[in-house]
Amino acid sequence: MKGFLLSAAMLLVFFSAQSQSPETLMVRAFRQQKEHAWLEEYLSFLSVPNTATDTLGLKKNAALIMQMMTKRGINNVQLLYPATAGKAPSVYGEVMVPGATQTLIFYAHYDGQPVDSTQWAKGLKPFVPKLVKGALEKGAAMTAFPANLSNIDPDWRIYARGASDDKAGVMAILCAYEAISRSGLALHSNIKFFFEGEEEAGSAHLGEIFQQYKSLLRSDLWVICDGPVHQSGKKAVLFGARGDAHVEITVYGPARPLHSGHYGNWAPNPGLLLAKLLSSMKDENGKVTIKGFYDDTKPLTDAEKKALAAMPPVDAQMKEELKIVNEEMPGIALADAIMLPSLNINGMQSGNVGPKASNVIPVSASAVLDLRLVPGNDYKLQQQKVVNHVKDQGYHVTDEEPTDAERKIFPKIAKIKLSEGYNAQRTPLSLPVAQSVIAAVQSTTNEQVVAIPTMGGSLPLFLFDKYLNAVTITVPIANHDNNQHAENENIRLRNLWNGIESLAAVMLIPPPVK
Amino acid sequence: MKGFLLSAAMLLVFFSAQSQSPETLMVRAFRQQKEHAWLEEYLSFLSVPNTATDTLGLKKNAALIMQMMTKRGINNVQLLYPATAGKAPSVYGEVMVPGATQTLIFYAHYDGQPVDSTQWAKGLKPFVPKLVKGALEKGAAMTAFPANLSNIDPDWRIYARGASDDKAGVMAILCAYEAISRSGLALHSNIKFFFEGEEEAGSAHLGEIFQQYKSLLRSDLWVICDGPVHQSGKKAVLFGARGDAHVEITVYGPARPLHSGHYGNWAPNPGLLLAKLLSSMKDENGKVTIKGFYDDTKPLTDAEKKALAAMPPVDAQMKEELKIVNEEMPGIALADAIMLPSLNINGMQSGNVGPKASNVIPVSASAVLDLRLVPGNDYKLQQQKVVNHVKDQGYHVTDEEPTDAERKIFPKIAKIKLSEGYNAQRTPLSLPVAQSVIAAVQSTTNEQVVAIPTMGGSLPLFLFDKYLNAVTITVPIANHDNNQHAENENIRLRNLWNGIESLAAVMLIPPPVK
Repeated sequence: MKGFLLSAAMLLVFFSAQSQSPETLMVRAFRQQKEHAWLEEYLSFLSVPNTATDTLGLKKNAALIMQMMTKRGINNVQLLYPATAGKAPSVYGEVMVPGATQTLIFYAHYDGQPVDSTQWAKGLKPFVPKLVKGALEKGAAMTAFPANLSNIDPDWRIYARGASDDKAGVMAILCAYEAISRSGLALHSNIKFFFEGEEEAGSAHLGEIFQQYKSLLRSDLWVICDGPVHQSGKKAVLFGARGDAHVEITVYGPARPLHSGHYGNWAPNPGLLLAKLLSSMKDENGKVTIKGFYDDTKPLTDAEKKALAAMPPVDAQMKEELKIVNEEMPGIALADAIMLPSLNINGMQSGNVGPKASNVIPVSASAVLDLRLVPGNDYKLQQQKVVNHVKDQGYHVTDEEPTDAERKIFPKIAKIKLSEGYNAQRTPLSLPVAQSVIAAVQSTTNEQVVAIPTMGGSLPLFLFDKYLNAVTITVPIANHDNNQHAENENIRLRNLWNGIESLAAVMLIPPPVK
Repeated sequence: MKGFLLSAAMLLVFFSAQSQSPETLMVRAFRQQKEHAWLEEYLSFLSVPNTATDTLGLKKNAALIMQMMTKRGINNVQLLYPATAGKAPSVYGEVMVPGATQTLIFYAHYDGQPVDSTQWAKGLKPFVPKLVKGALEKGAAMTAFPANLSNIDPDWRIYARGASDDKAGVMAILCAYEAISRSGLALHSNIKFFFEGEEEAGSAHLGEIFQQYKSLLRSDLWVICDGPVHQSGKKAVLFGARGDAHVEITVYGPARPLHSGHYGNWAPNPGLLLAKLLSSMKDENGKVTIKGFYDDTKPLTDAEKKALAAMPPVDAQMKEELKIVNEEMPGIALADAIMLPSLNINGMQSGNVGPKASNVIPVSASAVLDLRLVPGNDYKLQQQKVVNHVKDQGYHVTDEEPTDAERKIFPKIAKIKLSEGYNAQRTPLSLPVAQSVIAAVQSTTNEQVVAIPTMGGSLPLFLFDKYLNAVTITVPIANHDNNQHAENENIRLRNLWNGIESLAAVMLIPPPVK
């Protein structure tokens, strides 16, 4: 028995070594030499602010990316501005391979979510990237930039806005190309690069850019590098994303703030009105109670059902990690939950809490709702369902600050702002190129690669389909516990290194047999 | 007919002149000469920050008040510190009148509510007092300090934290005394002065100060100058105040902020939990649904019922002014609503709204609840009813940040912080001194003085009863639309001038016939 066990273990080691391609080992060896230089470059990149309101910061990021591309020998590097002048251009570059019959284009975005510096941990600022010897939340300490030639622990993390979402994508794509070109590996495909600057602001000009630069952007596959790997830590390939749209609701109390003693019990309290309104949108089991909310949802395909069934279970691990006892919809697993449209309260506020709280009846209360969409949902229709629900609760709905005349007539008024948004998109798992990408990523790791029908998050993938008739497949690289979109965003270095290997492998996929 | 009408009008003019006492006319004449000087002094006073967290600012205020008292010839001016060293001392002074058989002590507080400067109107800062030619909210413009001898319009307002609540009280009391002493009017009573510095912070050390300085503070009546006059604009005398206590509730989502796309529909959203919890505390008719909330309320006395019935109706005017269609409890008038205990959401927050909103499931959501109490309610019991209600909604309640161990066991956790608080107090309307004070204020005005059984707001009046066995009567002076406790706090100059006359008249009430 013992002998048999040993043999099985040896076989596994042999198989493991076998299962990582020679190309992966070459990319890895190159990366190991470059770690210090890449880390230094990445920290500089993360130091440039990239929020949607910081137009100058976004332009600086774009200029820096152009330098990073040119330095790596990428050609035809340029900024793509939409005709209507969006706030931040996309950055384009290409490497054309003589005789190539396939073109792959790699996408990431360099803009980041808004920041609230006061929420970040002590010693951290969103645009002063810091190295931490692990997860800060688990007590790991900050550390200085490592001296040259000293060891860089792959479990170290970089904390900064954009560290994982999605400057990591830009960095990993450029480093993957650098590793290939400098290791003497042969490309079989033309490689194009496309880095967006308005993704977190809703990609308002991406469609325009696609229309204007349609021929420049021609490709057989868009490889999207954004979002986290599977929560199990295994590499993932994703075939879709949920759509996204927002609804911002403000309800009103008295026209001026009132002393809560003199008027408490008499003047309507906007916080309570909002609480009742939000409360009416979901039942105790987390199910959205807005009329028709789930009605348009397309049923899953057999391939999607199969992929879902094959996904490693993560719910128990995630509950442990997030200190959650029950799911919002009790008994519905995470992988299944994200196959449904969702409604989430991103934020709500009325008056102040904490040291700034005062004894008032505030004048208003606001909430920002995030709607995620799946195939079949139309984002404008989904927003309209929320508006109708608010009306059904007895509210007069307006999209402007209510006038005095309105306030005199209507007991309950809601100002509702509907954001721009976009629908969900899914690429069929059955396409040959889908299988090629899974195989490429599988060639870099001993562990099972997880094929996921859709990410829970959103990317404007429908635009690629609509304007370019393009196929999109997502290869994410960030650790799942990256605090994406929130304070203390971070990336674990191991994920950056592994991501470079995944993306290099995808750059090397063979052209389809014609 | 025409002749008769003219005669009636003339009679009214005669009656009006008659109904204002000679003392009032003397005080008024003195004030008219002093307006520029007092205004200048008041603006300096309002420039000194007075929030609870600004210990240094509070001390500067106390020192300035001592100067203002000494300058007016008030004696024995001193700071009263509690033995346990509160943050801000009370300021004491006195004027002893030989042979006086009655002692009146005048109370106001010099500390102010917290400020959120970002909420104040453009051009206003809480501690940079500005003169405005009316109500800023109605479009009135700011104006420079008037040149000497130029007219000061009594409808001008001063905007600053504390302008009405309650530095106006300090200023009016000191100016009333100055007017009496400088106009040669004879005092029949000893006059004492007591200015508190911790009222907005819950008067945590007032009881201690009363115990320590019991003999110094001996008096026949405490005259409390705080709060606004009646909404009809008529002068008011108040015989009680509601009690006050706070409950701060925090509920929890995931242990770290999550991307609302990747986890929306699966991780519990703390904003929704809080909305449901708050929503469960009041029904659609504004009635508190917390078990036993109204049970301890003492029934009104006949004198209180009579006073309520005699109060001028203000609901229609207030609804018009505040742009409210319905009361929170439909059909219950303001005067009746404040005779009941109340629960009000002062503030609530989860994540962010507006430009800082991001696509997250936040880690927590908080609300600050303000409980107002009427006679019969015990503030700790009233807080406990809220705690019990939260437990009844399935929450594990803790007063600390929940531990990981707790989070693993309990699906719903609420951290609840109970503030210090105090009970309601009412002075019987039937006391002779109550009638004397009403008569004194009535001697300053042609309009009916409104006797109000209780103010909706709170003052720690029960402490005066408990530690000093003292009778308290409140003579408010501020305009009702003063934005007390909120941004853009202001006082209308006419209210300051009229208030000085009211307080002077009360200083001159005759001793009771023994």
